[in-house]
Amino acid sequence: MKRIIASCAALLLGLSALAQQALFGGPSVESPVINEDGTVTFRYRAPKAVRVTVSGDFIPPQQVTVERNGQRMTMEATVPAEMKEGEGGVWEYTTPYKVAPELYTYTFNVDGNDVLDMNNVFVDRDVATLSNVLLITEPGTTSDLYAIHRVPHGTVSKVWYHSDAAGFDRRMTVYTPAGYETSKAKYPVLYVLHGIGGDEEAWIDHGRATQIIDNLIARGQAKPMIVVFTNGNLSEEAAPLENSTGYTRPTMSLPQTMEGSFESAFPEIVKFIDGRYRTIAKKQGRAICGLSMGGFHTLYVTLNYPDLFDYSGMFSAAIGTGSEERAAHKEIYENVDGKLATYFSKKPALLWIGIGKTDFLIQANNDFRAKLDAAGYPYEYMETDGGHIWRNWRIYLSEFAPKLFK
Amino acid sequence: MKRIIASCAALLLGLSALAQQALFGGPSVESPVINEDGTVTFRYRAPKAVRVTVSGDFIPPQQVTVERNGQRMTMEATVPAEMKEGEGGVWEYTTPYKVAPELYTYTFNVDGNDVLDMNNVFVDRDVATLSNVLLITEPGTTSDLYAIHRVPHGTVSKVWYHSDAAGFDRRMTVYTPAGYETSKAKYPVLYVLHGIGGDEEAWIDHGRATQIIDNLIARGQAKPMIVVFTNGNLSEEAAPLENSTGYTRPTMSLPQTMEGSFESAFPEIVKFIDGRYRTIAKKQGRAICGLSMGGFHTLYVTLNYPDLFDYSGMFSAAIGTGSEERAAHKEIYENVDGKLATYFSKKPALLWIGIGKTDFLIQANNDFRAKLDAAGYPYEYMETDGGHIWRNWRIYLSEFAPKLFK
Repeated sequence: MKRIIASCAALLLGLSALAQQALFGGPSVESPVINEDGTVTFRYRAPKAVRVTVSGDFIPPQQVTVERNGQRMTMEATVPAEMKEGEGGVWEYTTPYKVAPELYTYTFNVDGNDVLDMNNVFVDRDVATLSNVLLITEPGTTSDLYAIHRVPHGTVSKVWYHSDAAGFDRRMTVYTPAGYETSKAKYPVLYVLHGIGGDEEAWIDHGRATQIIDNLIARGQAKPMIVVFTNGNLSEEAAPLENSTGYTRPTMSLPQTMEGSFESAFPEIVKFIDGRYRTIAKKQGRAICGLSMGGFHTLYVTLNYPDLFDYSGMFSAAIGTGSEERAAHKEIYENVDGKLATYFSKKPALLWIGIGKTDFLIQANNDFRAKLDAAGYPYEYMETDGGHIWRNWRIYLSEFAPKLFK
Repeated sequence: MKRIIASCAALLLGLSALAQQALFGGPSVESPVINEDGTVTFRYRAPKAVRVTVSGDFIPPQQVTVERNGQRMTMEATVPAEMKEGEGGVWEYTTPYKVAPELYTYTFNVDGNDVLDMNNVFVDRDVATLSNVLLITEPGTTSDLYAIHRVPHGTVSKVWYHSDAAGFDRRMTVYTPAGYETSKAKYPVLYVLHGIGGDEEAWIDHGRATQIIDNLIARGQAKPMIVVFTNGNLSEEAAPLENSTGYTRPTMSLPQTMEGSFESAFPEIVKFIDGRYRTIAKKQGRAICGLSMGGFHTLYVTLNYPDLFDYSGMFSAAIGTGSEERAAHKEIYENVDGKLATYFSKKPALLWIGIGKTDFLIQANNDFRAKLDAAGYPYEYMETDGGHIWRNWRIYLSEFAPKLFK
């Protein structure tokens, strides 16, 4: 029988492995390779290619000058690295530096076309863009929180709830901490919101959120908590290909996005969670945070329902984007000053703001902080390197979660 | 602010979108397109390419003659379709036939390199191979079970259990049917096993198993049941990148695979499920099935624990593969005739066998059926077109599940 499999494989390789799935085929060159000295080697076999480059956030951004519409501008960007062709048409690039422990995404470009590293089967979809994943972790760094360790693991569930606001069932991801099922205790709840174009899977995939929470709890650095990852597009049932509309391309311009519908309907999510799980169903037992659009949602959910959340975290929040103008639920965005006064009069435990130095939203966030400062409202602030990127959002969650429910 | 975003986007497109993630970039041509007449068009932009083809199981297999080692052999294979270059270097292929409703996987090949369709963000990993996904569903066909409909949805959870046999925690996927959380009823349990190189995610991704079960239950064609998707490699904690070994490439040659360890340890999984969930914790409330290696596991778990399962389904089972010779737990594979006699003497509700006409394992399955026939042991049998492919395994699950727990 082994002989039969081998000969089948030999024959099929010349044609197509798809006639007998899942058994044959596989990688031809090894890529990526994390070398002993901490550098990383990328390889891509393309004997007929003229130029192959590798792009990714493992490449440090640099100042580049761009001419556009007759104007010269200097900006920060990552410049793709040139790969060199070697034996057998295998193109190769080794970083000239140790790559810092982090979760990176990268793609190759072959003669003008972005392609994936087919030898690295770990692929992430971010909105409508595919990239390969490179995860380098090291004890003693934040990246160690992104690794899976032999610690007790929480349960991660895809859960559907009925949305009265939407008129149909919608999906969320729910993390219950290790021990939840065998305990009778009540747990606090952290609601974590994604950015525009994202969905209830974004924080799980790119954010390593369940690994971060598992590890923080195991280290005793965060309280055991339930974590709820919502889908912030009220017009959608669930992530693409997980909803009844079938084969739709992910987009950043869904209806009912950043126009008040999601924020307005947030209490029904809290009600569902408090009904389904053993929660500490009061303000002291609830936190909310989100990235980009989710930071915007976090702000307005917090302000409009000042008795719901004791802890709020705005990560690279997309405030000041003018979305208020086209709001279906204008009331959500009105009277911000009055709502801020009410919110702070109720002495929330924590308003936390984090943003990258080169984030295109930093001015809007600075303006917002100036408003808080002028009124003497308390908040915590963290400024990191880099821009509007997942690396920062993972760091912010790692910083924010330990501050909750103390 | 909108203006700032737009100008950032314009600048970044010339360099790399990775400096500001998740907001910019996206598709350049539309692919795939399911046309009004049921044909499908694939497109790939590659202005510098000499030859582009598309491979996939949407192409009907044909008889091809292959010469290998001086011998001419005729075999069934899918031959990649040639794409034609059009305007702007966009290569295109439209099927000359209506593509039957199904879930397909496909890849492009550009001048000898397999690449993904970057305009189709739906990608599946099968063992160590990446492919794009094309899902065509149509009411009245089996494919309708693979679609997500507006019916009550079960909860799908990633759950860790402690394996005494492995000495560490391991992950499984657990489906609880809609209504489980708000009911006090006890539910029967179906255990579903993957093939070699697979893991606890395989049936969820390629198998559309949770959609199939959701839809069958909603139609009243299957009993509400808990479904458990195990990881059949006892040396592994969980799927690649979801375990503490970190960045490992999926492989079909893991230790402790098809040598008795998994089958031997199966009762600890049943014990965990009966302890954690409200189950009908007896033979009449339990079923097991699996594909390929999982069909092999199903057979031996069934025979070695004849009081555990009333229903067993062998899908393209990898029996007769000689794995018994290298068994760490030889006792699992010994005395098959005696174990069959004991098993059938206990009058199981159903032994179900399904396989494709051109599956390379059909002879081994025919031999096994001949043994059952000779002894007069009852079983149900289904033979389908095609080989060792996911299409068949989805069909078998769709056929098997309605027969359970009646």
